[in-house]
Amino acid sequence: MNSLRKIVFILVLFLTVSGSAFAGFDPLPSWNDGASKKAIIAFVKAVTTKGNPSYVEPAERIATFDNDGTLMAEQPIYFQFLFEAVNLKYIGCDLKDSQSVKKAIDYLVASDPFGDLLIDPATGTPKTEEEFKAEVNSFLARTIHPRYERPFADLVYQPMLELIDYLKKSGFKVYIVTATHSEFIRLWSEKAFGIPSEMVIGSSLKARYVKKDGKDFFTYDKDVKFICNGEDKPVGIHYGIGKRPIAAFGNSDSDIQMLEYATNGKGLRLGLLIHHTDAAREWAYDNPSDIGQLKDGLSEAARRGWVVVDMKNDWKVIYPFDKKAQAK
Amino acid sequence: MNSLRKIVFILVLFLTVSGSAFAGFDPLPSWNDGASKKAIIAFVKAVTTKGNPSYVEPAERIATFDNDGTLMAEQPIYFQFLFEAVNLKYIGCDLKDSQSVKKAIDYLVASDPFGDLLIDPATGTPKTEEEFKAEVNSFLARTIHPRYERPFADLVYQPMLELIDYLKKSGFKVYIVTATHSEFIRLWSEKAFGIPSEMVIGSSLKARYVKKDGKDFFTYDKDVKFICNGEDKPVGIHYGIGKRPIAAFGNSDSDIQMLEYATNGKGLRLGLLIHHTDAAREWAYDNPSDIGQLKDGLSEAARRGWVVVDMKNDWKVIYPFDKKAQAK
Repeated sequence: MNSLRKIVFILVLFLTVSGSAFAGFDPLPSWNDGASKKAIIAFVKAVTTKGNPSYVEPAERIATFDNDGTLMAEQPIYFQFLFEAVNLKYIGCDLKDSQSVKKAIDYLVASDPFGDLLIDPATGTPKTEEEFKAEVNSFLARTIHPRYERPFADLVYQPMLELIDYLKKSGFKVYIVTATHSEFIRLWSEKAFGIPSEMVIGSSLKARYVKKDGKDFFTYDKDVKFICNGEDKPVGIHYGIGKRPIAAFGNSDSDIQMLEYATNGKGLRLGLLIHHTDAAREWAYDNPSDIGQLKDGLSEAARRGWVVVDMKNDWKVIYPFDKKAQAK
Repeated sequence: MNSLRKIVFILVLFLTVSGSAFAGFDPLPSWNDGASKKAIIAFVKAVTTKGNPSYVEPAERIATFDNDGTLMAEQPIYFQFLFEAVNLKYIGCDLKDSQSVKKAIDYLVASDPFGDLLIDPATGTPKTEEEFKAEVNSFLARTIHPRYERPFADLVYQPMLELIDYLKKSGFKVYIVTATHSEFIRLWSEKAFGIPSEMVIGSSLKARYVKKDGKDFFTYDKDVKFICNGEDKPVGIHYGIGKRPIAAFGNSDSDIQMLEYATNGKGLRLGLLIHHTDAAREWAYDNPSDIGQLKDGLSEAARRGWVVVDMKNDWKVIYPFDKKAQAK
């Protein structure tokens, strides 16, 4: 009994010491010590500190992130659009030629051909899960970004990886809420961001469960779809989570409603927009732009007290490979 | 350094001792030691033991449960149907009168009036989240089951609560996949089963995000709905999780496709059906029945090696209040 008490005492001591060691630890090392970083840390501390008037129970700590332009680069073209352009082949898209890119985007926005990718063009039957996965994996490995000469999938934002990790360690459930189709992003979200398929809410085609020749698979109705964008981001959250997030992160006007939905709730809330201000390391763009337009979002942010991240001044590094280069 | 090593040593010792103490612990105390219990424990041990050929990484440990008749009593009427019958008032439903119950079920199946409950009948506008929640809470508290003279919400199955807990402690993500509308069940699933709203995949009406008079809320199109039942249970899983479950639990023919979907996957899988065989403590029913018909499911179970739980012989107690009575 005495020795058990001793073990418990040492255990408590150990946890206390490791706890206070954590207090001096910087959870966002790739963020400069500016207003954005301070606002994020103040928010997380307030909602996770028992006794704080803004304390939020872990069950309600829901955070939602847009993907393109918020967690990864979206220039010159959204990642899914590139996948469509590369794989559907019926448009030529030269990523170094802005006219070619614009033409591709216009075409892809107008025709939304994602569903075609789930069909085997030779047989007209749905691809198996394995076939589609192999196709996406091959795309991830071989599609090189012309500016950075690296796979597109490397262009995730190091500061946002740290933010996701910080929120998860602070008891948040972290979701991606994106117009990208679920079938595509779910194949790489875990590896890219540590966010598993079940925490990804994306666009979806009406699916049907089919059994044939001893196999089972899903077929899709390409004409009936849920596009998880703009005012349908809160709807996607409503379907998939059923709770109002207490924090939401985006970068464009199509994220406004998601941030509104999160920050309209009672109690302390965090809305945050990434502003692409860094032409040297990433891109500087907002309005007007074919991709990632941010116009109304900036005035809404001012009016509603959302944090606007100035990528150029708030982020020490943009990509994980910058960090490695810096450490050398 | 020496004392740190000592702390680490004691810590490891402590964890080892508590680990082996757990090995002798019965995770399913309300289950009799029969084939069903053995099959569940053998499955969980195999998929969670590193080095076992059937080992499954935690990320892939997805388990899905039907609700009515699998996690809680569904006689004489599904819980949601009762909520509809009580709140819509335009049908009289006497739960002690089987003819009245049958009439109510026929009516509710045919008209599926759930969407009407989300509208304020006086004004025709959607109820606020708070208004609907208050209505459901009042229903939960005041609606007494005529047989047990207790709130319906008490009629959850103690052995299934233990099974959910066992799976969660074994690194599973546990979902409810149900034809019950999400808006309803999500308000009490956490309290009833320890399953939070974001782990509930239910039926849903097409929703729209609306802002009016400085408030935001969802409105619904009652005519466009996803009914998460039968072959649309795998579809609901596909939308909401994006992974094939490795274990699925149901009790009726409308769960067959969900169990098929789970058990058609590669590697060790668990499909399990609850067979209602206990007229004395619960009900004995399968085929034909207005509620919870189980006919094809039994032959599928035999053919595919699914576990069929014999409620009468496999379960020591049915409800948590039985357990309390037993302990006296």
